[in-house]
Amino acid sequence: MAEMRMSELATRAELPVATIKYYLREGLLQPGRRTGVNQAAYDERHLERLRLIRALSRIAGLPLAKVREVVRTVDGDPSLLDAMAVTQDALVGEATDEERILGGVAEAERELSGTLAALGWRAHPDSPAHRAAVRAIAELRAEGLDDAVVRLPEYARAADEVGRLDVEIVARAEGLDAMIRGVVLGSVLRRPLLDALVLLAQQHHAAALADPRRASDEGIPD
Amino acid sequence: MAEMRMSELATRAELPVATIKYYLREGLLQPGRRTGVNQAAYDERHLERLRLIRALSRIAGLPLAKVREVVRTVDGDPSLLDAMAVTQDALVGEATDEERILGGVAEAERELSGTLAALGWRAHPDSPAHRAAVRAIAELRAEGLDDAVVRLPEYARAADEVGRLDVEIVARAEGLDAMIRGVVLGSVLRRPLLDALVLLAQQHHAAALADPRRASDEGIPD
Repeated sequence: MAEMRMSELATRAELPVATIKYYLREGLLQPGRRTGVNQAAYDERHLERLRLIRALSRIAGLPLAKVREVVRTVDGDPSLLDAMAVTQDALVGEATDEERILGGVAEAERELSGTLAALGWRAHPDSPAHRAAVRAIAELRAEGLDDAVVRLPEYARAADEVGRLDVEIVARAEGLDAMIRGVVLGSVLRRPLLDALVLLAQQHHAAALADPRRASDEGIPD
Repeated sequence: MAEMRMSELATRAELPVATIKYYLREGLLQPGRRTGVNQAAYDERHLERLRLIRALSRIAGLPLAKVREVVRTVDGDPSLLDAMAVTQDALVGEATDEERILGGVAEAERELSGTLAALGWRAHPDSPAHRAAVRAIAELRAEGLDDAVVRLPEYARAADEVGRLDVEIVARAEGLDAMIRGVVLGSVLRRPLLDALVLLAQQHHAAALADPRRASDEGIPD
């Protein structure tokens, strides 16, 4: 593996040298190979780690304590599943349920569990993601959007496809640092893409509803 | 249609009387039927309008100027498509492209247009949703997540399903106020649900990747 000096590492990671030294002192970046009293050599693994830290702190906007949590997990050589769980937890965070949805939480919990069981999903029932889904269902019910909750299995099938693509993409990354960076960037940068695509799809289906002839006759000669 | 007094309207809309009077003065709520010097009667249409205003301002957090824009459009008796376009625009807002993605915008624009054309989507190319999608693609490319962009058609197909469900649900609402309220609540409250479901799906697929036997053997007798 080709080695490089600190200055080259800084250039390639797009980070100031002072920041990299700070990450070294904090134990977030593994030490380089000592080559002199005041010099060390770094390689691609250091670069990957810096890219991961940059994704967590600058792009996802996580506080340093959360960044440390994720990096520690990655250093423990975990499975992708465990690394992903810790990363998701750091990204999702916790919210306290507001009083107005508290009454609906137990019911929402049952609705979600039923849907997940029917789909055969293996997911952590005590993860922040699970709690976020329960909260979202209770919110929809509280606002009278029961139709959306009734369609839960259909939304879950669409989400299944998105989650499958996300995991397929990160699973091709080389090394756990790159993989977790993929999870972070996927969560933070892929989300706005999906949101925007859904809005465009809404436009398309609203147009089809207003003028079904154009949608169904397309390509059929008169 | 059963009529009610201001006090009952306030109770059912879960809003203070003073707030409702403010909306009346601002022209956001249509006037009631005058029944005396200082009294008026209101009906379900007033209630629906207040629920729409509440969804726009309190749940979506839009400033009053944006709320006014949406309400004015609804008052003009537009098609669902036009009403949805104005609502989406108010919800998405505009962001200026950062310098670091500017170089990739034209390319991202081509990639998105190609995908939309292949899908046969009829969507406004100059809508904020379209620009948000272009920006998201350019961001992914700038961070080296090219794999996610390569999978754009697959993400778009999943989004298609979500958008179809969203529109199906709002199209069943009675009256344009209720419909637009559905679009708002769908955007604001359905989004966290989809986000959480995608995270759960990621967990499931990461688990299936780690232990494919369990996933594929399910239901197959030994």
